[in-house]
Amino acid sequence: MCQLLGMNCNTPTDIQFSFEGFAKRGGLTDEHVDGWGIAFFEESAARCFIDHRPASDSPVAELIRNYPIRSCNVISHIRKATVGQVKLQNCHPFIRELWGQAWVFAHNGDLKNFAPTLQGDYLPIGETDSEQAFCLLLQTLKNEFGYRNAENRPGAKEIEAVLRPVCEKIAEHGTFNMLMSNGQTMYTHCSTKLEYIVRAYPFKQAHLVDCDLQVDFGTVTTQNDRVAVIATAALTDNEVWTPFDTNSFVVFEDGRPVLKNGVETTL
Amino acid sequence: MCQLLGMNCNTPTDIQFSFEGFAKRGGLTDEHVDGWGIAFFEESAARCFIDHRPASDSPVAELIRNYPIRSCNVISHIRKATVGQVKLQNCHPFIRELWGQAWVFAHNGDLKNFAPTLQGDYLPIGETDSEQAFCLLLQTLKNEFGYRNAENRPGAKEIEAVLRPVCEKIAEHGTFNMLMSNGQTMYTHCSTKLEYIVRAYPFKQAHLVDCDLQVDFGTVTTQNDRVAVIATAALTDNEVWTPFDTNSFVVFEDGRPVLKNGVETTL
Repeated sequence: MCQLLGMNCNTPTDIQFSFEGFAKRGGLTDEHVDGWGIAFFEESAARCFIDHRPASDSPVAELIRNYPIRSCNVISHIRKATVGQVKLQNCHPFIRELWGQAWVFAHNGDLKNFAPTLQGDYLPIGETDSEQAFCLLLQTLKNEFGYRNAENRPGAKEIEAVLRPVCEKIAEHGTFNMLMSNGQTMYTHCSTKLEYIVRAYPFKQAHLVDCDLQVDFGTVTTQNDRVAVIATAALTDNEVWTPFDTNSFVVFEDGRPVLKNGVETTL
Repeated sequence: MCQLLGMNCNTPTDIQFSFEGFAKRGGLTDEHVDGWGIAFFEESAARCFIDHRPASDSPVAELIRNYPIRSCNVISHIRKATVGQVKLQNCHPFIRELWGQAWVFAHNGDLKNFAPTLQGDYLPIGETDSEQAFCLLLQTLKNEFGYRNAENRPGAKEIEAVLRPVCEKIAEHGTFNMLMSNGQTMYTHCSTKLEYIVRAYPFKQAHLVDCDLQVDFGTVTTQNDRVAVIATAALTDNEVWTPFDTNSFVVFEDGRPVLKNGVETTL
C-alpha cells in the first residue's frame, strides 16, 4: 500500500511542514520505501519530482525539504510496491496533458482484475494499476467533452459529474483512494482511508505526528489564506482532521471542500 | 535564444561532466538566465527537472550536479526568454506521452508567424512557439500512425520519415534546432547550429570550455561504452566536435548517429 498527501490553497503556499512529516513515512516511521514523488502546480504547468529511492533517504526529497516551492495545488505519494517493480516508471504522481493543462494523479490502494479498455489517447508508461486508472479517467473526460481548450474547458462541477461514477466503478476492483488535479481544482475519491483539514484564520500551532516539529502558522500566513491538506492519515497530533466518508468523492477549491458527492458545501 | 544539450548512449551514463559546463552558460559564461530544465529517461519513463531560476544559481541544478542519474537519453535546455514570460510553463524540456512512452522535446531558436492548427490531442500548456512545434510533431505522428502500443509502435526509420518534413516546414518560420526523444532514439533537427561528438573506446581526457574541469573518461567507462553528446556549441576544448549540416535531420541510437537526412550511416 502507499500513502497520499495533497494540498489545495487559495494562495500559493509551501508544503515543507507537511512534507517533512510525510517523507518520514517513506522509510523511517513507516514502510513506504519503494519510491516517492511530488508534483507542484504553477498555473497550468506542473513540475513533478520522482525518485525510486525511499523519501526518507532521497537526495531529491532533501531538495524539496530545503527549497520552498509555493503552489496552490500539490500532490505527493510514497510507495510500498505491490503491483509493478521498484522503478521510476511506476512512481506516482503520474502526469498527462488534457485541454492544455497538466493533470496530476496519485493513488493509494490495490485494484484486482482491473484491465480497462484504453483506446489509445492515454496509455500507461509503467506497469501499475494506478496509471491505468488515471488513463481511464482522462480518456473518459476526453470522450465526454471532446477537444477543448482554454476558452471552453468544462467546469469543476461538470468534470466531477463525469469522474465520480468512473471512480465508483474502479473502486469495485479494490481500494481506490486517489488525488487528481489540473492546477485549479483538487478532485479526490476515498474508498477506505483519507482525511483532511482546512486551516484558516485564526491560524494556530501545529505539531507533526512523525517527528517532533512544530510550526506556528499564524506567523507565516495572512488573514485571507486558506489551506486544505489531505492525507491518508493525519499528519499532526494537535489538530482535528476530518475523515472522508467511505466511497465519497470530494472536490476542493480555494483551500476548502466545495462539492461532496456532487452536493455543494457551504462555508 | 537558448542552448541545447543532449546525450544518447548505449549504456546508462551520467551527464554530470557535460552538465557542469553547460549549466555555467545559464548565467555565468553566457546569458541564458530565464530558466532551464533537464529530462532523464529511465526505460520508457522520463523524469524532468525544470526551474525558472538561472541554471548557474538553481537549487535544482545543484541537485543534478551532485546526484548522478544514469540514463541512455538526456535532454537539457537553458533559456533566454524571447517568446513567453519567465515562468515554469515556458521552461523546456516539454514532455508528453505517445503510444505508452514519454516523449521529451527542447528547442533552440525563434519561430515567426508560427501558429499551427492543433486539433487537440496535444495542446501547449505554456506560451512558447517551441511547445506548439512539439505538439505539432506529436499530432503528426499520431495522425500518421494512429493508436499504437508497445506491440506495434513504428520504428525509428518510419518515425524519422514523418518528422523530418514537418521539421523542414517548421524551420521555414525561423530557427529550429531541436532535440526530441522517446527514451530509445534521439531525433535531432539542426537549422543553424548544433554540434556533436561520439566518445568510444579508447576513451581520452576531456576538458570543459566553460570552467577548468577535466575528466579522464578512460577511468569511468568500459570498452563497450559509446556516448554521443549533442550541444548548441562544443562543451570541450580539446576534442573534435562535428558541426551538423544546415537544415539536417540526424537520428542517434546507441551512442552514435544512425540516420542523416534519412540515409543510414555506417560505423
